[in-house]
Amino acid sequence: MRPSGRAADEMRAITIETGFTKHAEGSCLISFGETRVLCTASVEERLPPWLRGKGEGWVTAEYSMLPRATHTRGGREAAKGKQTGRTQEIQRLIGRSLRAVTDLKKLGERQITLDCDVLQADGGTRTAAISGAWVALRLAVQGLMDKGEIKADPLTSKIAAVSCGIFKGTPVLDLDYDEDSNADADANFVLIEGGQIAEVQATAEGATYDEEGLLRLLRLARTGCDSIYRAQDIAVK
Amino acid sequence: MRPSGRAADEMRAITIETGFTKHAEGSCLISFGETRVLCTASVEERLPPWLRGKGEGWVTAEYSMLPRATHTRGGREAAKGKQTGRTQEIQRLIGRSLRAVTDLKKLGERQITLDCDVLQADGGTRTAAISGAWVALRLAVQGLMDKGEIKADPLTSKIAAVSCGIFKGTPVLDLDYDEDSNADADANFVLIEGGQIAEVQATAEGATYDEEGLLRLLRLARTGCDSIYRAQDIAVK
Amino acid sequence: MRPSGRAADEMRAITIETGFTKHAEGSCLISFGETRVLCTASVEERLPPWLRGKGEGWVTAEYSMLPRATHTRGGREAAKGKQTGRTQEIQRLIGRSLRAVTDLKKLGERQITLDCDVLQADGGTRTAAISGAWVALRLAVQGLMDKGEIKADPLTSKIAAVSCGIFKGTPVLDLDYDEDSNADADANFVLIEGGQIAEVQATAEGATYDEEGLLRLLRLARTGCDSIYRAQDIAVK
Amino acid sequence: MRPSGRAADEMRAITIETGFTKHAEGSCLISFGETRVLCTASVEERLPPWLRGKGEGWVTAEYSMLPRATHTRGGREAAKGKQTGRTQEIQRLIGRSLRAVTDLKKLGERQITLDCDVLQADGGTRTAAISGAWVALRLAVQGLMDKGEIKADPLTSKIAAVSCGIFKGTPVLDLDYDEDSNADADANFVLIEGGQIAEVQATAEGATYDEEGLLRLLRLARTGCDSIYRAQDIAVK
Amino acid sequence: MRPSGRAADEMRAITIETGFTKHAEGSCLISFGETRVLCTASVEERLPPWLRGKGEGWVTAEYSMLPRATHTRGGREAAKGKQTGRTQEIQRLIGRSLRAVTDLKKLGERQITLDCDVLQADGGTRTAAISGAWVALRLAVQGLMDKGEIKADPLTSKIAAVSCGIFKGTPVLDLDYDEDSNADADANFVLIEGGQIAEVQATAEGATYDEEGLLRLLRLARTGCDSIYRAQDIAVK
Amino acid sequence: MRPSGRAADEMRAITIETGFTKHAEGSCLISFGETRVLCTASVEERLPPWLRGKGEGWVTAEYSMLPRATHTRGGREAAKGKQTGRTQEIQRLIGRSLRAVTDLKKLGERQITLDCDVLQADGGTRTAAISGAWVALRLAVQGLMDKGEIKADPLTSKIAAVSCGIFKGTPVLDLDYDEDSNADADANFVLIEGGQIAEVQATAEGATYDEEGLLRLLRLARTGCDSIYRAQDIAVK
Repeated sequence: MRPSGRAADEMRAITIETGFTKHAEGSCLISFGETRVLCTASVEERLPPWLRGKGEGWVTAEYSMLPRATHTRGGREAAKGKQTGRTQEIQRLIGRSLRAVTDLKKLGERQITLDCDVLQADGGTRTAAISGAWVALRLAVQGLMDKGEIKADPLTSKIAAVSCGIFKGTPVLDLDYDEDSNADADANFVLIEGGQIAEVQATAEGATYDEEGLLRLLRLARTGCDSIYRAQDIAVK
Repeated sequence: MRPSGRAADEMRAITIETGFTKHAEGSCLISFGETRVLCTASVEERLPPWLRGKGEGWVTAEYSMLPRATHTRGGREAAKGKQTGRTQEIQRLIGRSLRAVTDLKKLGERQITLDCDVLQADGGTRTAAISGAWVALRLAVQGLMDKGEIKADPLTSKIAAVSCGIFKGTPVLDLDYDEDSNADADANFVLIEGGQIAEVQATAEGATYDEEGLLRLLRLARTGCDSIYRAQDIAVK
Repeated sequence: MRPSGRAADEMRAITIETGFTKHAEGSCLISFGETRVLCTASVEERLPPWLRGKGEGWVTAEYSMLPRATHTRGGREAAKGKQTGRTQEIQRLIGRSLRAVTDLKKLGERQITLDCDVLQADGGTRTAAISGAWVALRLAVQGLMDKGEIKADPLTSKIAAVSCGIFKGTPVLDLDYDEDSNADADANFVLIEGGQIAEVQATAEGATYDEEGLLRLLRLARTGCDSIYRAQDIAVK
Repeated sequence: MRPSGRAADEMRAITIETGFTKHAEGSCLISFGETRVLCTASVEERLPPWLRGKGEGWVTAEYSMLPRATHTRGGREAAKGKQTGRTQEIQRLIGRSLRAVTDLKKLGERQITLDCDVLQADGGTRTAAISGAWVALRLAVQGLMDKGEIKADPLTSKIAAVSCGIFKGTPVLDLDYDEDSNADADANFVLIEGGQIAEVQATAEGATYDEEGLLRLLRLARTGCDSIYRAQDIAVK
Repeated sequence: MRPSGRAADEMRAITIETGFTKHAEGSCLISFGETRVLCTASVEERLPPWLRGKGEGWVTAEYSMLPRATHTRGGREAAKGKQTGRTQEIQRLIGRSLRAVTDLKKLGERQITLDCDVLQADGGTRTAAISGAWVALRLAVQGLMDKGEIKADPLTSKIAAVSCGIFKGTPVLDLDYDEDSNADADANFVLIEGGQIAEVQATAEGATYDEEGLLRLLRLARTGCDSIYRAQDIAVK
Repeated sequence: MRPSGRAADEMRAITIETGFTKHAEGSCLISFGETRVLCTASVEERLPPWLRGKGEGWVTAEYSMLPRATHTRGGREAAKGKQTGRTQEIQRLIGRSLRAVTDLKKLGERQITLDCDVLQADGGTRTAAISGAWVALRLAVQGLMDKGEIKADPLTSKIAAVSCGIFKGTPVLDLDYDEDSNADADANFVLIEGGQIAEVQATAEGATYDEEGLLRLLRLARTGCDSIYRAQDIAVK
């Protein structure tokens, strides 16, 4: 039995509240159970120097946890003067994932930055961030299309992410913090609606797994992402 | 007339939602109109080295704005590797203000950190932060007292803050962003319930004022803080 | 009785030695008693990027204490790799204060930087810095006018600053270090010759005060600033 | 056809020169074709504070590229004052991978740091680094066992890593730089001798793949790692 | 002819004003012509961790230029967040030089930090700094001896420094800024009273010299240091 | 007798392996005995802003030690976020030395960066670095001439460097680590083929020396550099 009492293939409740902040071109507060991430999409009509003049745009992401999003207070990265390796790893993952479903040429010479700030953490913050960032991006892009600044939709598909793990020998979906702390293996899947895999990050520190284990985790992830796509659909309608 | 359509001595709507995040010993989301600040109080049973062994505790604060809390996206301090002077000035002000109503001996050898993260900014973020931080602190202290870890209440009073300014020649209360950008003078008052002044930061870049002007701003601030004390009262009940 | 033996409304000896360093366009060594601050004004015929092309100039300030300006040696900020919040707060205050008496359009598209380096500290370093920075600025501006680079005088008035506090219940003027360490409240006033207030920073950590207390401190500050204006007058003649 | 002229399942030449530097407790220069990484293992009889007193040791890694390891010179991280996200991501991966085959209790309260410095880069630096770091670690551990400082062998197995990708529609093994720059998808596999998976990092920026694609890449990786285990075997004999 | 009109072997006027600041255990303002450096010696009854428990003390130095010590304003190192290579090179030289005449065992387990802050620069700031730092150190050590905290004098000799260079083919003593900017070679000599050499830093960027050239510069330096020893003697009496 | 068993005027074995890495325009691995430094020359057809438009080029250097180049592991500068004073001092020395034999006008508006990375340290890393950097520079310049991008050879001469010291009273050539740790004085000489001195850095921390001592060290250095010039000659043929 999972600490959360959920079935092995059961996601936590997914809620997506769009328009959570008013200044961003797109924004939502996404929750996977008690994990809550504020995602905003900011459109800027300029590109970093190394991307200019190529006739295409850029999508990038930044990620942070509020100091007390977690059980014990973590030092504020701004006060320490640098971002941790974990933060950088996650924000690179978010950016890559969203670019996997964006046609940068259709986006035009502009940059959209997805800020994913974790207000409350209970496991799965990076997967909630990717899933919510897509909603914020979709809303921002829709705004650009409504204003006629973009002609053809640059978003090629929906994308979502979920973590799976092996908990006491059983593959389970959408680990919360208690489960994650005790899992033998942990994998994050970023999946594109329609069946393609955008990214797999499967790690076993201590325990390990084989092909069959990997495929079982992936099957769970597909189940979870289907739920997320539905929630995204409702949110952006 | 004010851009906001408010009367000169009219506060924006104040709302305080306690328990906004679950891990912190005290937390609230405070709104002054469209300005929304998440305040959390984290209790730690240890002190920085220079404060140890004096038989008293410490209250400190950190402040940050999410990158897209504002009209245009601001660079993330963690990414830039340092906090701005403005951020440091504000977090020092929040810490000093809360210490003005805390008996550090009664707090005992522990530290409470108030994290004030601006989710959405529309003027007056530092005053909302101080007012909300008091609520988070009050809740955290209450928790310590309920568990018997503190005997006598270390909080000596309520404290609240509000900004006032001279807008087109008229002293007005609780400036929002549009008003603030066009005000001739700007003053932040931190006032203790019962009439004492904890802090005055009155600045005139360009315009100036005299004793009478200062006193008129202060009278407005008293009005505003009275509203805030009432909202705090309701929140911590 | 004050530790310094001074009357409650008595300033320390003010001396201003102009031309203390030869390279700066304006410079002075200002002393408030044992507090000594070297102030230089550097004129540069260029502006930071965000100020260019607006047909006006900029006045800014930097502040620092030499490591052994104080009773015990403080770490050098350059060695530690960052400026403290206190330093940033003070240099922002100095810059704002001088801009309050400068017509930036008349200054033209150039920047004047006021460097205020405390050679010896005995309380009131920021107020001495503002008062001395005005002298350095006045000299630099005079030089620009003498060379015909500026037509109309951009300085609209004299500006000076002084700290006041409540020491053992009595409001006193121009706190030195011993008094400051033991004062119940501490306020810095930046006043423009002619009666206007540019800035008030009144802080009560522990003790507090009310309107009457604030006004009494302000009256003392007016007395002190009158002495400083006279010293500035003599210095720039 | 691959730019390198290799068959789809053909590794580049693997060479491992042990004892490349004399001070480290274990060291080797590993080459995957033109990619050359110097791996050293440094044993220290102390642990970082947060790991002390738990009766177990720690294995960690640092990674860097010499500025001119690449086609064009990259800025030196030490000069820029921070490590890139890519560097941090890679060194975290190396550390996790080696810990997956280390029994930290048997290691005892000491730390082994694997430094992986890329002297020349031609694709696959992180996989060469992991494979070479294992050799350096093995040699260092052997030294500790020979001196009687460790009783039971803490290394549970061999570990190796290799990158695979989809190049012009065909899954290929061990991408070099030219192939990597033009691959549609790129996956790094860290595999434990005996069949277990330690880590999968599969990324598709632009292109994507499905279960079958992932499994085909994984089969290639198994082939490649078998060659690496043999080279490791010879090196540590 | 030299721009300064001095003879080839003529020092600039040397003045040393002791007790320039009151808090430091030893202090002086030293001038070599228009170059003015404030030197303070701070005694601390503690050592950095790596020097503790060896029964001896430490002498170290820090160096800085005020931003407007020079013809054009230089950025403040504290604001830029790091010390330049030049600053570090100079402060390491000052520390080494003073340790060359200090018996660290006789000093006992305490640290003396020499802060050398250039108030005005006109060439030769590092040599003035070394020469002045010795005076500050002498005064601080004398204070410790007077209070009985040190029994035997740890200072074994006087030490002084001067720059020499080849200007239009002629070796000249004590270069000022104009001469230094146009010299073909530049050498700094740190010499111990009695004839020993503590340090030579001779650089030829562009031009070069041979043994004879080096010896001629060294002979000039001896002449210059003799003048400095006399000024030091008078200062510490 | 020297710990190394060498005669007082005997260099360690010098080997120079050119083309050690393939991407750099010039590269070599230079060894002075067990000290091994990888030197690469990178040509870039652009200059830092402050050097542009003067019709001449620039030669600069960066230096680093791999963390485990030494007996005990040193912290990685990139991880600590700054270069030590020692590193900066050395890389400035390398750059100055190579510029002493380069006609920057003949080089044209391009920059050559010499990266000197110490793979293994056993004393004399900076002198090996200078001597090897010349080889890398020579090869890079030759490449530019072969391609017709430079008409006239900008390198005016060969340059080499060696350390000498006074070990147990005897002047000795080319100190290794054991000797260096116990030497009474230590001097680095950078000498141009043909007899000119480019740089002398002679330091005596503790012990001292006089003219005669300095000249004896210099004579030894000339012997050592002659051997290095021969090795350089063979390497670049």
